[in-house]
Amino acid sequence: MVGVKHADRRLNVETALAEAQKLHSDRLYRDRKGLFFIEGVRNFIQASDRNWEMSAILFSEKLCVAPLARKLFRRARRKGIPWVNLTPEQFRQVSRADRASGIAAILRQHWSPLQQISPQAGLCWIALETVRSSGNFGTLIRTSEAVGGAGFILIGDGLDPFDANVIRATMGGIFRQKFVRTTYRDLKQWLRRHHCEAIGASPDGAIDLHRFHYPSSAFLFLGEERQGLNPRQRSLCQHLVRIPMQGEADSLNLAVAGSLLMYEILRSRRLD
Amino acid sequence: MVGVKHADRRLNVETALAEAQKLHSDRLYRDRKGLFFIEGVRNFIQASDRNWEMSAILFSEKLCVAPLARKLFRRARRKGIPWVNLTPEQFRQVSRADRASGIAAILRQHWSPLQQISPQAGLCWIALETVRSSGNFGTLIRTSEAVGGAGFILIGDGLDPFDANVIRATMGGIFRQKFVRTTYRDLKQWLRRHHCEAIGASPDGAIDLHRFHYPSSAFLFLGEERQGLNPRQRSLCQHLVRIPMQGEADSLNLAVAGSLLMYEILRSRRLD
Repeated sequence: MVGVKHADRRLNVETALAEAQKLHSDRLYRDRKGLFFIEGVRNFIQASDRNWEMSAILFSEKLCVAPLARKLFRRARRKGIPWVNLTPEQFRQVSRADRASGIAAILRQHWSPLQQISPQAGLCWIALETVRSSGNFGTLIRTSEAVGGAGFILIGDGLDPFDANVIRATMGGIFRQKFVRTTYRDLKQWLRRHHCEAIGASPDGAIDLHRFHYPSSAFLFLGEERQGLNPRQRSLCQHLVRIPMQGEADSLNLAVAGSLLMYEILRSRRLD
Repeated sequence: MVGVKHADRRLNVETALAEAQKLHSDRLYRDRKGLFFIEGVRNFIQASDRNWEMSAILFSEKLCVAPLARKLFRRARRKGIPWVNLTPEQFRQVSRADRASGIAAILRQHWSPLQQISPQAGLCWIALETVRSSGNFGTLIRTSEAVGGAGFILIGDGLDPFDANVIRATMGGIFRQKFVRTTYRDLKQWLRRHHCEAIGASPDGAIDLHRFHYPSSAFLFLGEERQGLNPRQRSLCQHLVRIPMQGEADSLNLAVAGSLLMYEILRSRRLD
């Protein structure tokens, strides 16, 4: 028996390097192509495990020593995924890691259409419009993955989960969360159709974080770091919860605030 | 600082700029002088409110428009605190803020001796030896302030709370938290003398974060981002608590993990 044999598709080094660099640094190019760049053994293994569509693999024989990454690379190559072998110097041209791992890939972005997702998909959905710090955004994704959250509903085009700094902060969480891009109008209709009550986090919220009775699947709205929820976001929220603070503190880091909410929902689900 | 020429102690511009820049960027110089640099209206007001000893004030008449900051500056000047008036261009030479505020100060570092602090000083003490990200360290300080934590016990000299990136992430929390620098040996004795049971956070902890009965004042040990608690830190902990995680997630951001612990202690204190 002979299996389907794919052609070995070796790429031109310069073309691959230029493409990777552009996807790394150019948001508009990333959006237009619908692709993004990842690097590192952990990310490569998780993208493979979760069957993310690979458009190309950048491999450095000398740098990549992790047996599982090498095995997955060979398997992908046999499947006909385009690849290129780079010298350590070439690999370091596209790598932003402290220690270049020798394995990187160009993946197809995956977006879920709003009409195809269910409010009951996981512990919670998080809706965001603006986050100043890509580290905060990535950390929220990491926590959502840790609590079994479904994913993120992004309003407008301010946020890009496939930004290299966001991906780094997710620590692999990016590959197991869903992402939806939508508008206020469509989100409002979706919430109404699903009888979904949105919960906003705000220092002036009427209900204490620890006293609120969270629904079985929660829909959380988080505002921007400095301004918090804007009027439009507030108008979508049926409930505003407040995280208690002592002394003169008036705010928390956004990723911390969102994580406290997610874990409070998880706690109420597990122990009540 | 030299350059005291006027009754109201106006400083030489070049000397003040050089001093501020060195304190901003040079950890060794900061340690040797026992001083640090802060900037921004919020930080300046909070340092004034909390009576932090000011060694100098860097003011830019044209940039600094906040009435309260101007008033506090005039008051400090009358008290004989050395100061300098900078052009916007000069001020921007030492500023790292997105928008230069026109007010900055050189403050004396404040350290609390281990022998003078009480385990019952606040909701909790946090012990740390290594944190890779200054943003994570600063965020932990910010959350500790928000829950009414007493402060931080730093083992060895790896961590500097007076680093500009740490201060930025504390969002003013730095001025209301205590800092102690000590060794493992002294900390061990202190814990024993006060019959204080340390709680470590670890993915392999035996007790669920949400099920543990926290003491009235908790002593928390947090490990480094990637390695977690090291054997020496573990040996000081009477209890190891675990933050529950779903799916394939195996860790959380350090600032998130520490914040979840602090808020769980606050919750158990408020609602039980």
